[in-house]
Amino acid sequence: MAHVPLSAAWIDGSPGFLRLIDQTLLPNRLEYRDCKTVEDVWEAIRSLRVRGAPAIGIAAAYGVVVGVQSVRNGSTSAFAAKVAEVAAYLRTSRPTAVNLFWALDRMEAVGRSQTQAAGEWCQALLNEAHAIRAEDAEMCHAIGRFGADLIGMGDGVLTHCNTGGLATAEYGTALAVLFTAHDQGKNIHVFADETRPLLQGARLTAWELAQHGVKATLICDNMAAQVMKEGKVQHVIVGADRIAANGDAANKIGTYGLAVLAKHHGIPFYVAAPSTTFDFNLADGSGIPIEQRNSREITHGFGSCTAPEGVVVYNPAFDVTPAELTSALITEKGVIRPVNEGNIRRVLRREDSR
Amino acid sequence: MAHVPLSAAWIDGSPGFLRLIDQTLLPNRLEYRDCKTVEDVWEAIRSLRVRGAPAIGIAAAYGVVVGVQSVRNGSTSAFAAKVAEVAAYLRTSRPTAVNLFWALDRMEAVGRSQTQAAGEWCQALLNEAHAIRAEDAEMCHAIGRFGADLIGMGDGVLTHCNTGGLATAEYGTALAVLFTAHDQGKNIHVFADETRPLLQGARLTAWELAQHGVKATLICDNMAAQVMKEGKVQHVIVGADRIAANGDAANKIGTYGLAVLAKHHGIPFYVAAPSTTFDFNLADGSGIPIEQRNSREITHGFGSCTAPEGVVVYNPAFDVTPAELTSALITEKGVIRPVNEGNIRRVLRREDSR
Repeated sequence: MAHVPLSAAWIDGSPGFLRLIDQTLLPNRLEYRDCKTVEDVWEAIRSLRVRGAPAIGIAAAYGVVVGVQSVRNGSTSAFAAKVAEVAAYLRTSRPTAVNLFWALDRMEAVGRSQTQAAGEWCQALLNEAHAIRAEDAEMCHAIGRFGADLIGMGDGVLTHCNTGGLATAEYGTALAVLFTAHDQGKNIHVFADETRPLLQGARLTAWELAQHGVKATLICDNMAAQVMKEGKVQHVIVGADRIAANGDAANKIGTYGLAVLAKHHGIPFYVAAPSTTFDFNLADGSGIPIEQRNSREITHGFGSCTAPEGVVVYNPAFDVTPAELTSALITEKGVIRPVNEGNIRRVLRREDSR
Repeated sequence: MAHVPLSAAWIDGSPGFLRLIDQTLLPNRLEYRDCKTVEDVWEAIRSLRVRGAPAIGIAAAYGVVVGVQSVRNGSTSAFAAKVAEVAAYLRTSRPTAVNLFWALDRMEAVGRSQTQAAGEWCQALLNEAHAIRAEDAEMCHAIGRFGADLIGMGDGVLTHCNTGGLATAEYGTALAVLFTAHDQGKNIHVFADETRPLLQGARLTAWELAQHGVKATLICDNMAAQVMKEGKVQHVIVGADRIAANGDAANKIGTYGLAVLAKHHGIPFYVAAPSTTFDFNLADGSGIPIEQRNSREITHGFGSCTAPEGVVVYNPAFDVTPAELTSALITEKGVIRPVNEGNIRRVLRREDSR
């Protein structure tokens, strides 16, 4: 099994920097982008060079380290101010994925009760970013193990957007479930929505599935209902960018429609996400901010203009799937079913993950 | 109100030929394509230079005239053989739209009980093609009038693919309803699915709506559920390529999913089509052949490759929406509701159309 390269890695040096796979160039070109300023990191997140809720969090964590390099030989107070400034700036890159805010909270917490010199503090921040990444990788593998138990021999599974190694530290969330089931010899067949407007399914998921040797078929988003009707899929599995306390889940636009279609066809609908994606500050999904993106993503997506000049476009990047349409949440702590706040809190409190 | 040019017109001359808007070039270029051989016509239908069930029928009718020009000074028997040969060939251009077969049946019937010389027979064929086109235009306007009664002031309406003047002789089917409601001053707002893979909604529907001055917003197909959830649309109206005796309707891929989503949101789902789209030879939709199209429409749709080399693709051009998900059929004879064979036959038997 070929391994998908990590989406975000710290390159040591003086100063060190963040190296990303530029996901906007896949699958035609596998190129790395070196982010040597915090502005580079902000732009990479905003432009979706790095995307996927966990990967955004990891990139932002390293982004803090990138941003404070210039003052690591300065005073502790100047360093503290810079940490706050850089974190505040990175928070403005994308509004929906809670992992971004969670990772930045963790980075800001480092050193709050400490008295290191700036240089040591900088190293502590780097260690924290490494830890965030390592923990994410561990969570992904645990999600894969819990989720694979739900998949049977020869099952067809429909997925949306990209939730694999590119979207996380490695292995993925929803795709981790599929990679694990595949590694267990379950001979699954994945149907990947292309995921307009930015085609993360066609460009990234189809590429990752091919890298792993998983049998896959690419479809347009509007073909999912037909694939369900034909009995080709027994499960729908997606990731999430933020999950409210009651289990309402924000994910790539189109996810909510898939949940409705799955319910109509009696197909279980699963959301796979690490505990870092849960936001207990929100009682339900109505409070999740939905990013609106540029109309040119739809009208000029891939090198040519595909709509009349001046057309009005609606381009929400995410939608919210209500908990009642979700058969189960798959986390690194276990499978949460039925989806409600009590079950979510009970499972996520567990110490042990497999 | 600007008029959308007709999609297919006969240009008199010696020999005459069929002139089409090349819909594959819209909205960037409005260019005509002259079909001077029957192979040109076949290719134009196959390549979707002309598309939309009624327009395919009209183009095929004129295609017969194009194909027999070479023998119009020959013997009656040679002419009869040519008519049969040309019609059989055109039947192979696309499998799903019944209007194609219906129009070719009508063309073949011309002269079957007659004894004209080839030249007169050729003129009779041209007259029949003109009649098919004129009747289609009349039907479209009647559909518009019946359908507009269902639309209220300020309503939002979601539509899919292209069902306007480009898809018919003029004015359209589902879009005729919207044009008529707009002309009645109802201040409607249309949400147009872009309609992957070939983007007929973005390229053609958005263009036609702009030409008519109808307020419109372009969305990706996977945003329809969100638009419904937000209460932005009070109706879904689509066209059809073939409707079985029980009301099951084949239409552009994605239509079936919209019908499921509309049902979930309590939004009425209408299919607008002329009586020529009904196929009483089929008891239900299970017998409708679904055209599978080339994978490159999905992987190379936008002028660049958007999927990994060698990816497996599923690309059905149509799906079938069961009658029970359809609130009403809108025809030139009236609105059929509820949708069942008895009501369909009763309404389509009416002599009078408005």
